[in-house]
Amino acid sequence: MQSTPNYAYVRGQVLPLEQATLHISDLSIQRGYGVFDYFRVYNGKPVFLDDYLARLRASAQALHLPVLLSDDELKEVVQELIHKNAMPASGMKMILTGGYSANGFDPAEPSLVILQQPLNLPGPDMLERGIKVITHDYVREVPRAKTINYTMGIRLIEEIRRRGASDVLYQRDGVVSEFPRCNLFIVTHEDTVITPAENVLLGVTRKNVLALAGKRYKAKEGTVTLEDVYQAREVFLTSTTKRILPIVQVDEQAIGSGKPGEVTLSLLKDLIKLEEETSLVHKV
Amino acid sequence: MQSTPNYAYVRGQVLPLEQATLHISDLSIQRGYGVFDYFRVYNGKPVFLDDYLARLRASAQALHLPVLLSDDELKEVVQELIHKNAMPASGMKMILTGGYSANGFDPAEPSLVILQQPLNLPGPDMLERGIKVITHDYVREVPRAKTINYTMGIRLIEEIRRRGASDVLYQRDGVVSEFPRCNLFIVTHEDTVITPAENVLLGVTRKNVLALAGKRYKAKEGTVTLEDVYQAREVFLTSTTKRILPIVQVDEQAIGSGKPGEVTLSLLKDLIKLEEETSLVHKV
Repeated sequence: MQSTPNYAYVRGQVLPLEQATLHISDLSIQRGYGVFDYFRVYNGKPVFLDDYLARLRASAQALHLPVLLSDDELKEVVQELIHKNAMPASGMKMILTGGYSANGFDPAEPSLVILQQPLNLPGPDMLERGIKVITHDYVREVPRAKTINYTMGIRLIEEIRRRGASDVLYQRDGVVSEFPRCNLFIVTHEDTVITPAENVLLGVTRKNVLALAGKRYKAKEGTVTLEDVYQAREVFLTSTTKRILPIVQVDEQAIGSGKPGEVTLSLLKDLIKLEEETSLVHKV
Repeated sequence: MQSTPNYAYVRGQVLPLEQATLHISDLSIQRGYGVFDYFRVYNGKPVFLDDYLARLRASAQALHLPVLLSDDELKEVVQELIHKNAMPASGMKMILTGGYSANGFDPAEPSLVILQQPLNLPGPDMLERGIKVITHDYVREVPRAKTINYTMGIRLIEEIRRRGASDVLYQRDGVVSEFPRCNLFIVTHEDTVITPAENVLLGVTRKNVLALAGKRYKAKEGTVTLEDVYQAREVFLTSTTKRILPIVQVDEQAIGSGKPGEVTLSLLKDLIKLEEETSLVHKV
């Protein structure tokens, strides 16, 4: 078992990590052009991999990039990296760029890169206390595609820290959408669980949480305003690496009791159970 | 004299081009995070280099990236590449990325890459006939910064070609701004030359053309609507690689006489003269 990977897949080859490079003509470096996806490895097995592969293909299609490998071929690479890197609890990222462009603008044969990363799930502190988030006026350019473009999210890291927050929620004209890397949920005072329907990435954790919430409460996709967020009884975010994280403050407004709520924490329990069941029965 | 470069500068070293790579942990590959600038080399000399260096610094500041080298140090690298690559008429690109990120999200010490590229100025055909452009609803995220993010521009290449156009003009709510890589100018029926003031990159060619136009006509920055463009007597674009290019059709609307206009062509003559004077007297 290791804490860092030794190998990565780059343009058809599994290479020692220090040799895992792309030429500077690659369209990710020249023009930030590419898509990616990211899934977790749990007990040495990929979790919900088919969902992530389907989303990678949808993102690639939105940017007119062929994925190059079949799902079976991608799964073989994933297995090889899991075997060689010996990181049974980790994340794995698949990046597909516009390739080595002759003129630095027109896409070429794509570059496919697959790398494994250490995974840090939120600690008990964050779950017990919840987090503060700020808001920012922004909508991603191609919301349904998981592009590599995080210009806005990374540019805002300094402001997030300065304001004592952990993340930034995008809104436009008072309608909220998503975080740079997470989806948003609110729980109303009528126990309805709502996640924004438009201008969001269709998160795999979002989908699973929506289904789990539907078993216990009313749950739906819909329009969520900033005012809905401020007035919600509970607010939380979902993502592959964070699972479910309670949000107790948005901008300068405390949410509900100012503490992580019951609905949030019960859904987190359900989600962890689902992940464990899936990784026990999962076959690649 | 060569038609392609043999050397590029990557993270402190001038390397043979085939060895010019970035590790896959670079934040350009992971998150499309970086800025760049691009200037022309003419008669073996950089043209308007101080303007481009100042803009690179402004872009870098907007994304909280230190440039690492002083202007004098940057000019030394530029001179070394001009000498080694022996491409007296070419383009040179300086890319500054978020660096080799430990966690694939937080910026590290930036990667600075400087590469030379063959330059293709527009042929006489394009100047004689002018070009068609289409329009698209979009505003760049950080308009004053020249980020590497061209997700929208490259994604639209297919649509531009399908509609028989050469480029795409961004507009939002009927107010136009810029092209992915060029600035816009219109000439009104009152002989006033106007370029959009807001949501644009402050092009060096834009600045020079605005000054040249001011010597012959009324010239200003201002709000330009899509309707202003459709009704203009002349429309043209400016950029470092294209200088001035006449636009004779926007979407399905012919502009003015449907042919390149007199103001456009006279400004192009002025610009070429300015470039020649500058490269004759220029010292690095």
